[in-house]
Amino acid sequence: MGQYVAPIRDMQFVLHEFLNVTEEFKSLPKYSEIDADIINQVLEEGAKFTQEVLFPLNHSGDREGCHFNAADKTVTTPKGFKEAYKQYVEGGWAALACDPEYGGQGLPITLNNSFYEMLNSSNQAWSMYPGLSHGAYECLLEHGTDDQKRLYLPKLVSGEWTGTMCLTEAHCGTDLGLLRSKAEPQADGTYLITGSKIFISAGEHDISENIIHLVLARLPDAPEGSKGISLFLVPKFLPQQDGSLGERNGIACGAIEEKMGIHGNSTCQMNLDSARGTLIGQPHKGLQAMFVFMNAARLGVGMQSLGLTEVAYQNALAYAKDRIQMRSLSGPKAPDKPADPIIVHPDVRRMLLTAKAYAEGARAFSSYVALQIDRELNHTDEDVRKEAADEVALLTPIIKAFITDNGWIATSEAMQVYGGHGYIAEWGMEQYVRDARINMIYEGTNTIQSLDLLGRKILMDNGAKLRKFGEKIKTFVEDNGLDEQLSEFVTPLGELGDKVTKLTMEIGMKAFQNPDEVGAAAVPYLRVAGHLVYSYLFAQQAKIALAKLDSGDKFYEAKLATIRFYFARLYPETAMLIRQARSGAANLTALDAELF
Amino acid sequence: MGQYVAPIRDMQFVLHEFLNVTEEFKSLPKYSEIDADIINQVLEEGAKFTQEVLFPLNHSGDREGCHFNAADKTVTTPKGFKEAYKQYVEGGWAALACDPEYGGQGLPITLNNSFYEMLNSSNQAWSMYPGLSHGAYECLLEHGTDDQKRLYLPKLVSGEWTGTMCLTEAHCGTDLGLLRSKAEPQADGTYLITGSKIFISAGEHDISENIIHLVLARLPDAPEGSKGISLFLVPKFLPQQDGSLGERNGIACGAIEEKMGIHGNSTCQMNLDSARGTLIGQPHKGLQAMFVFMNAARLGVGMQSLGLTEVAYQNALAYAKDRIQMRSLSGPKAPDKPADPIIVHPDVRRMLLTAKAYAEGARAFSSYVALQIDRELNHTDEDVRKEAADEVALLTPIIKAFITDNGWIATSEAMQVYGGHGYIAEWGMEQYVRDARINMIYEGTNTIQSLDLLGRKILMDNGAKLRKFGEKIKTFVEDNGLDEQLSEFVTPLGELGDKVTKLTMEIGMKAFQNPDEVGAAAVPYLRVAGHLVYSYLFAQQAKIALAKLDSGDKFYEAKLATIRFYFARLYPETAMLIRQARSGAANLTALDAELF
Repeated sequence: MGQYVAPIRDMQFVLHEFLNVTEEFKSLPKYSEIDADIINQVLEEGAKFTQEVLFPLNHSGDREGCHFNAADKTVTTPKGFKEAYKQYVEGGWAALACDPEYGGQGLPITLNNSFYEMLNSSNQAWSMYPGLSHGAYECLLEHGTDDQKRLYLPKLVSGEWTGTMCLTEAHCGTDLGLLRSKAEPQADGTYLITGSKIFISAGEHDISENIIHLVLARLPDAPEGSKGISLFLVPKFLPQQDGSLGERNGIACGAIEEKMGIHGNSTCQMNLDSARGTLIGQPHKGLQAMFVFMNAARLGVGMQSLGLTEVAYQNALAYAKDRIQMRSLSGPKAPDKPADPIIVHPDVRRMLLTAKAYAEGARAFSSYVALQIDRELNHTDEDVRKEAADEVALLTPIIKAFITDNGWIATSEAMQVYGGHGYIAEWGMEQYVRDARINMIYEGTNTIQSLDLLGRKILMDNGAKLRKFGEKIKTFVEDNGLDEQLSEFVTPLGELGDKVTKLTMEIGMKAFQNPDEVGAAAVPYLRVAGHLVYSYLFAQQAKIALAKLDSGDKFYEAKLATIRFYFARLYPETAMLIRQARSGAANLTALDAELF
Repeated sequence: MGQYVAPIRDMQFVLHEFLNVTEEFKSLPKYSEIDADIINQVLEEGAKFTQEVLFPLNHSGDREGCHFNAADKTVTTPKGFKEAYKQYVEGGWAALACDPEYGGQGLPITLNNSFYEMLNSSNQAWSMYPGLSHGAYECLLEHGTDDQKRLYLPKLVSGEWTGTMCLTEAHCGTDLGLLRSKAEPQADGTYLITGSKIFISAGEHDISENIIHLVLARLPDAPEGSKGISLFLVPKFLPQQDGSLGERNGIACGAIEEKMGIHGNSTCQMNLDSARGTLIGQPHKGLQAMFVFMNAARLGVGMQSLGLTEVAYQNALAYAKDRIQMRSLSGPKAPDKPADPIIVHPDVRRMLLTAKAYAEGARAFSSYVALQIDRELNHTDEDVRKEAADEVALLTPIIKAFITDNGWIATSEAMQVYGGHGYIAEWGMEQYVRDARINMIYEGTNTIQSLDLLGRKILMDNGAKLRKFGEKIKTFVEDNGLDEQLSEFVTPLGELGDKVTKLTMEIGMKAFQNPDEVGAAAVPYLRVAGHLVYSYLFAQQAKIALAKLDSGDKFYEAKLATIRFYFARLYPETAMLIRQARSGAANLTALDAELF
């Protein structure tokens, strides 16, 4: 059932040749000892685990799905999931990028990121169980009390316990200000929480002994709207002071959803009936605390689609080399066979290269951002930390929306390579498309991401963060603009940079007159911004590849061809997007709702 | 579970106001008596049948799927499918556009087309059972012997028997020249056919008493390749001379596929073991005969995606009016509620209008082509028939690929309107996306359609058919170019016409040097051509709507807003597509297959 081989060579190119991470780590005290050997070893071990343990469970997990046992309100995960998780915990994978103070291995997020790509290539549905634990870990690390940290972090770090985020209710997803779950303060400083949550990924399952729910609810004196929401830690089993499991708490799964994809992950309706919880962070400031979790989750969702893009590409490539059908229009390429392998056909190559370019683009992009996060958290210079933090804030919605939109495009193209076989479950390709679809929705729909980017991250500070990032691009363009070999990459990059500047100013001006102009432009704007980022990162990588073209390593030839394909075939989307973004709000808002 | 109301008003606009079909029918002797009342009555009855009988079975059919009974090699369709088919036959729906000589009602294909849209909006999987029968009917009508027609056509017309097309084998789909099934001539003039077919839609089921398979196979003396393929009629039960069922034939279902969607339709592996058949048309000329079937099927596939686009739009619209979430950026629109209905948000409108514009565009386009088919088959003037036939040939691949690509885009946008609920099976939206995906693949992948358009239909006759169609556009542009009110539509139409002319010549020139240039440009080229057609049809409709804007009927206001949206937001895709189509083959072919 298909294949997956972790793309270690390309990961190494990104980490060592493009980002030069070991050099960067030297200015981050926590990571100054991390050398290429450690990185490569983790990549290789990660490859083994994901290829051998998780990937074989991907298709079977999709076909089997999760089982809800109404009698005792438990969820059974697909065959093999529990055992694989045991191996994951025993291998120390949960602890990879966690703080040694709580049992973590203290490796950089940049490296964890590469491993996370492998997890998602091999099995997105499975990876969502530990994936959410890491978000819970980060949220507690930043906002938890000492007691909460002491009791919960070691178990989350080891992976013995997993975590969830319980935000959505039936009547509110995007608009959390509407949420109704209530928290009643108790004399002992805890809270009794009552309410009903939906769409809780990994809300109930059988792979870990305890589940730590991070739940949004309202205190009795809470102001209305989003400023009256608090965050609570609500464990499935209340731990004893020694960390052993105590009483079963009043939070339980009421049902699991039947979904388009990610069948191996349980999407739960969670009912809280006087469930005991403790406050995380300040009263009424739950959304701010939860944002730590959500930002991590948004990056994670981008990685999910990178993972799917890569594995869909690999399988489509194998099929395109193997399947023979028709002759090449420019003459037989395999005259000894009754037809040519379909990889000779230009449009099959277009589909493959779309997936390849989007996989390599997303890999470079997400690794770049992961490195910025490591700098944000660990650099000794506060200015560097601040600059990195701004860039991460700017790029996070692009990671989430651009990579997941591209993942939808790429998995669908990869499926199309298979012709009719792509539509048949047995071949495994349609699962990638179905799984990829959720990534455009959850953790804030891609529309919400685009509003976050354009409204909050760009217009709210008058473009300061964008300008900072733009200066980097400008410097690169100026430094390399006269290099003839590079002009095919640098020229379109420079042009797009100018266009984005103009477009941003134009929308900003229009938004003064009519705030709907932001909503009308945001989605195409985000994709333009995504292409600007990819153009910038690809142009830099082209420079590296060109310099090493004579090394005899054909990797650089392939890298250059992929980058050329990107500029010839994917970058031109900007011509459409800019027209759409500039077309204004009137073409959307003119029609009365009743006349639709 | 969702809703569907046949868009009769828009169908009437297209048929009566835009295409003025009753006027057109006056020059087609068979249809000269057909007036608006007959048309409207059929639309209304069709709406009732599809809304009340088929739509309620759509979601349940998807969840249940078909059942294969290995013991007796039968297939059971989902609950209710069989009974619905009985009503369909009793209502005379199968006979709508069939020849009265064989029991048909003799109504135009144009009208059948509108009904077919309704069928597919209400239930694509179900509609594929009778959908393929009509193709078999058309193929036999044109290529069948008198005996075949006498025995089979009345039953296909009434719907008592259904039809299939058996082309694909495991090792050949696109490349039918590779097919291996064999036909041995018998002394009585029949043939015994042996082989194995896959992906046979409606190959076995329980809704009709007999199934008529049209099977491609090779005669013993057949030349190799696609010029050695013959077409055979192979019934499941061999009929007696009086039309009653005789002996069970040696064709049986070996298995059914598990697929991404259209679960209610059986996709069968069909094994032929000395199955008795009769030749259709000439020996070795099976592909030509089958092309009648395939052309009808390609138009039908376009209609399937139109149907899905329409129903997905309707449901997303209802949700967007009902669901409240966040306030409008330009101030509360429903201050009495805790939040505004999401239809106030510009990007939700962008998603809705994308589906609306693609539904209305496809409706106008497919009705236009259906009318050309009626003219091709029935006009008294041979030149008119020839011109219509050329236009149908030119536009068929655009119908198939452009409408199905757009259907994928539109159903996905409609699903996105639902946020997380879109991903949940219960809400029904994800089924439309899954169902829509097959339409880009079967009856010739959309890549094959693009090669058919650019290679065969355009470059092979040096652009003659395209020029003819282009002259119509030119005339419209010249006639209306000075009308200020129309310039927002006519100007982009005229510009795109010029660009398509230049692009076609450019690709034609390049193709002389390198045939791979056709394959490299074909897919974006087809979409550019699709937008040219939509621009042309929308500009004409805008003229009509403008003229009636003061009528008090708000329909025209909505129509104009949709067309304005099209030109502002969808038409700009051409800026991307032209760049892609012009980018040439090298960015696809440069990389050695081993370096991917």
